[in-house]
Amino acid sequence: MSSDVDDHELISSEKVFDGRIIKVFIDDVRLPDGRIVKWEKVKHPGAVGIVPVLEDGSIVMVRQYRNATDEVILEIPAGKLSPGEPPEECARRELREETGFSAGEMIKLAEFYNSPGYSDEYFHVYIARDLTYEGTDLEPDEFLEEEKVGLSEAIGKIPTGEIRDAKTIIGLTLARLYLERAIPDFKKSD
Amino acid sequence: MSSDVDDHELISSEKVFDGRIIKVFIDDVRLPDGRIVKWEKVKHPGAVGIVPVLEDGSIVMVRQYRNATDEVILEIPAGKLSPGEPPEECARRELREETGFSAGEMIKLAEFYNSPGYSDEYFHVYIARDLTYEGTDLEPDEFLEEEKVGLSEAIGKIPTGEIRDAKTIIGLTLARLYLERAIPDFKKSD
Repeated sequence: MSSDVDDHELISSEKVFDGRIIKVFIDDVRLPDGRIVKWEKVKHPGAVGIVPVLEDGSIVMVRQYRNATDEVILEIPAGKLSPGEPPEECARRELREETGFSAGEMIKLAEFYNSPGYSDEYFHVYIARDLTYEGTDLEPDEFLEEEKVGLSEAIGKIPTGEIRDAKTIIGLTLARLYLERAIPDFKKSD
Repeated sequence: MSSDVDDHELISSEKVFDGRIIKVFIDDVRLPDGRIVKWEKVKHPGAVGIVPVLEDGSIVMVRQYRNATDEVILEIPAGKLSPGEPPEECARRELREETGFSAGEMIKLAEFYNSPGYSDEYFHVYIARDLTYEGTDLEPDEFLEEEKVGLSEAIGKIPTGEIRDAKTIIGLTLARLYLERAIPDFKKSD
C-alpha cells in the first residue's frame, strides 16, 4: 500500500476529439515513482437529475432511448448543464421540460462523479416535492414516456436489473434515506 | 409526452477515436419523427466495484488519484473488466489486488450504466464478506491508500460531498439496504 497517492502530477493534456458534448484528451501523468504514463479522459459539461415525489408518494420517472446503450432505459428526469447554469436552476428547468412539474421544494441529495476513472462528468441529484403541473416543454430531439412508480416498488427494481442507471439508483436510495430522515446534513441548496 | 420512445433506430456509427481504454463514435440515429440526428457515444469495457465488509462492520475503502478529475477521491475498490472476464471473477481479482482480501461471500448488489446519456460503461457492484487477508498485488501504475470507514460514517459522507463517486454511493447505500434486509431479491451470482 503506497502512501504517495497525492504525488501524481498532470503534466500535459492533448485533445484528440472535440465533440458537440464531449471532448477527449490523452494526459501525460507523472506517477509517484517518477514514471510518466498516458491516460485517456473525457470532459463532459456535467448534469443534473431529479427525484420528483408526488403527493401520493410515487415518483415521476421517464423511459428514454439511449443510443450509447441502444436501448430504452427507465430513469429519473435528468439533463445536461448549460454553460454557466447553476445546477439547481438546471434541475428546475429539466423537471419542467421533461415532466411538466414545477417544485415548491428542491433539496440536493448528492453530488458525484459518474465515472471518475475516465470522465470528469459531475452530477447533481435533487429530490423535488410540492409539485405543480404546468405542462411539458421537450427539446426537439427528446422523446420520452412518463411512468409513475412507487418509491419502494422502484427500489425493488434495482436488484432485479429493471432499473440500471447510476443516477436513478442514487436518487431513489438517497430519497428513501432522506424521507426516513436516516441521513442528517442534506443541504438545502448549492 | 410521446409514446414513440421505442421507435428510435441506430442507423450507423463512425469511430472517431480508438483509445487504449475507450472508443468514441458519432452515431446517426433516426428519431421517431423521421429526422436523423448525430449523437456522440463512448464505448468502455465495463467495470466492477466491491464493498468489502470487515467483521467489525467497517468498509475497506481506497483513496486514489484520478487524472480525469485531477484529484484524489475516496472510493470503494474497483477496476475494469478484462476481455471475456466474468464480472464476479473480476471483482474477486480487484478486491485481492487492491486490498489484499479474498471473500468467502460475494453477492451482487446491482448492475448499472454509469452514464447512459453518452457511454455504454456497464458496472457491477458486489458486497464482499467473510474476508481473509492474503496480501495486495497492485498493478504497476496503481498507487492507493487504504482507509477503513464505518458504514454509517461512510454514508454520512455522501450529503457532505466527502464521498462523491457514483459506484461508491451506490455500493454503500445498497449494502446498507441489503444488510438491513430492506430489499428482497438480491442475486447470489451473475
